[in-house]
Formats: sequence, structure tokens, C-alpha cells
Amino acid sequence: MAKVFVNVGLSLDGYLAPEGMTLENWDNPGHKNWAAKWGAMMGWVFNQQYFRENLKLGPGGETGPVNEMLKQTTERIGANIMGKRMFEGGERGWPEEAPFHTPVYVLTHEKREPWVRPGGTTFYFVNSSIEAALEQARASAGERDIRIAGGADVIQQYLNAGLVDELAIALAPVIFGGGRRLFENISDLVPGFRIDRVLDTPLATHLRYVRA
Amino acid sequence: MAKVFVNVGLSLDGYLAPEGMTLENWDNPGHKNWAAKWGAMMGWVFNQQYFRENLKLGPGGETGPVNEMLKQTTERIGANIMGKRMFEGGERGWPEEAPFHTPVYVLTHEKREPWVRPGGTTFYFVNSSIEAALEQARASAGERDIRIAGGADVIQQYLNAGLVDELAIALAPVIFGGGRRLFENISDLVPGFRIDRVLDTPLATHLRYVRA
Repeated sequence: MAKVFVNVGLSLDGYLAPEGMTLENWDNPGHKNWAAKWGAMMGWVFNQQYFRENLKLGPGGETGPVNEMLKQTTERIGANIMGKRMFEGGERGWPEEAPFHTPVYVLTHEKREPWVRPGGTTFYFVNSSIEAALEQARASAGERDIRIAGGADVIQQYLNAGLVDELAIALAPVIFGGGRRLFENISDLVPGFRIDRVLDTPLATHLRYVRA
Repeated sequence: MAKVFVNVGLSLDGYLAPEGMTLENWDNPGHKNWAAKWGAMMGWVFNQQYFRENLKLGPGGETGPVNEMLKQTTERIGANIMGKRMFEGGERGWPEEAPFHTPVYVLTHEKREPWVRPGGTTFYFVNSSIEAALEQARASAGERDIRIAGGADVIQQYLNAGLVDELAIALAPVIFGGGRRLFENISDLVPGFRIDRVLDTPLATHLRYVRA
């Protein structure tokens, strides 16, 4: 069966996003220094050949194991699931060709027709449960896997429901001092994880956990 | 000059200690399941030959790179610094031969004469600042290094003051769901760290950061 996975960048102090990185301050990257912090956390990805090519950032870039991991991760995704706030941020920030190229299930109370973008991304708006969104994602993903894209609250809901098979974290040695934590409101009754793979690189430690 | 370092075990969700692991519940390891959680986080250390020998837990144990790391870490310590609550827990829980074998500087408001234990541990009670405690620790440690032993609030104070040269974390794939976080009340202005070394083992990922 298709796997459900999460892959995120994380600051050393456990934040997915720094304080100030909100929709309201999207056009003000200096607000609480959010863009510099986020850029420092994600610096490793901007160095990868596959990422640069996909986002049309220019030639070059690393082609080692991290690049291979990025490529494999992207290629395994058959559907994405995300929360309303992440969608709203992206609706504003993504290019017309949204960077998913799969069906994307958006958890929201808003009733809205599917929104088809060039390049294979269609956003579907799910008004019921996280389980229902996962069912729809599974149906459209076929043999491929389902990525819980974010934000933090959606990831936490899927973790708490015991629905996450794999958790991949790129832990960067950056201190945010505040922001949105990955691990908050997590029940200690969630199924445990075991360490599956560690990639040791200068800018981030790539940790992958699978359900124990 | 001697280095100031922190080395701690951490749950995947960022806790040094699970909820319920307090002085009041020290004799009740079932309280909120604290002992099982803490044991799962620290399982890796109980497997190490050096640790077993030091705590007289019996023969055997691993003798690989993690064991070597433990040995080197212990041998480099010339003095320890800890907070009042950690001391109070230990005063109750440590054997007569307290497991430090160095001077230990306890940050507290209590005025108290030094407390000499068999085996080379003497506790000194420091009533002034974290800087003063560090000065005293440096003076007694000589060429050797100073370990900020904990708890969380003391580590946070030294991090915020920019006084920590090295931060070593044994990150275990265990979810606590609550407790005392390592990274809380940390200023984003603290000097940054870079990844210095990663040891990938089945039960924990040993991450070491040094000041960038």
C-alpha cells in the first residue's frame, strides 16, 4: 500500500517556520528577520541540482546523495495534502505552474470547486476529516505515496491519528528562537518511530524515521 | 582555553525530560509513565561498556564509537555546573559516591558550605551569577573542560549568554508528548552553531554542534 510521509526542514530548536513568517508579512521579509532565518534553514536545498532545475534557478548544484534523496522523494509523491493556511500562502506565492504536479487535497471549511493549474497540479478542497482527505489522496495516488505537506497543525493531526508511516527531517543548525514548532500537541500515545537513515552533510542532518 | 559544553539526551519531540519526572514523583516511576519514557530515550547509554562499568551495572556492553565518545566526554570534564533542581533530585537519587568525580558548581539561592562526597565530587553552592559560577568552574578545571550538566533552564541561560562552545545531543526516536524542552526561551541572537560530527546508531543519532 502507498505510504504516508512527512518531509520537512527543521531548525535546531524545533521550528518549521520562524516567527513573523505569516501571510500578513509575506511581502516584508525583513519582519523579525523571517526570510534570513528560513533561508539559513533551507540553504542546503538551494544547493541541490534537482531543486535548482525544478525551480528554474539556474544550472549547477550538488549531485550527491542529498540530491538523489530529493529526486526520489519528489518522484514518489502521488498526491499531497495540506492545510488551509499553507494553501493560502501558496496561492499567493507559487508561480502559475504550482510546484506539485499532483493532485493536492486542501483541508478547509471553504467550499470551492477544484482549481486546475498548468503543469499537473489540481487543488481539491476537502471539507470533512483528515481521514477523508487521505482516502481521496490514496485513490488518486495509485501506487505512489502521499505527502503530508504541512503546515504544522496538519502534520500534528496526522501524527496524532497514527497515520504517518515515515517522517523525514532536515535538521539545520540554525536557532529561530520562536515560530511554529513541528512537535506541539503531540500525544505520547502515537505509534513510535525508529531511525531508518541518516545523511550527514555540512548544512543539515537528514534524519528519516519509519514507524517502529 | 577550556571549552564549555552541553551534552544531553533528547526525545524526538525536543524534551530533555518527560512530564511527570519531577522530585515529587521520583519514587513513583509509573506516574505519567515517566520512567519508561526516559528509559527509552536513554536506552543507548545503558548498552555502553564504559557506562556500565562506571555505574557498576555489570560486565559487557558495546565498545564502538559511542562508547569511545562517552569515555572521552567523561574524561575531558574538569568541572560541572548545574541548577538547584537538578542538584536536589540528585541529592536524593545519587549514590553516596556521586557520579561526577569533579567539583560541581550548583546555582542556587541557598547559602551552604561545600559538600564533599567520596570519590572526588565536591558540591559548591554559588549564589551569584552564571558567569561567576563559570569563572569558579574554570579556575578549578584547569586545562580540562566544563560541562553544563542541566537542567533545562540552566542550559538555556548559558546558551542565551553565548557561553556554550559545544552542544552535543543524543536524539532518540521517542515521543514524550510533553515535559521539559531543551529549546525554550532561547534568543535568536545567540551565536550560531555548525554541525561538527554525527554518529548514526540504531537507538540514537549523536549530533555534535560547535560554535560557528
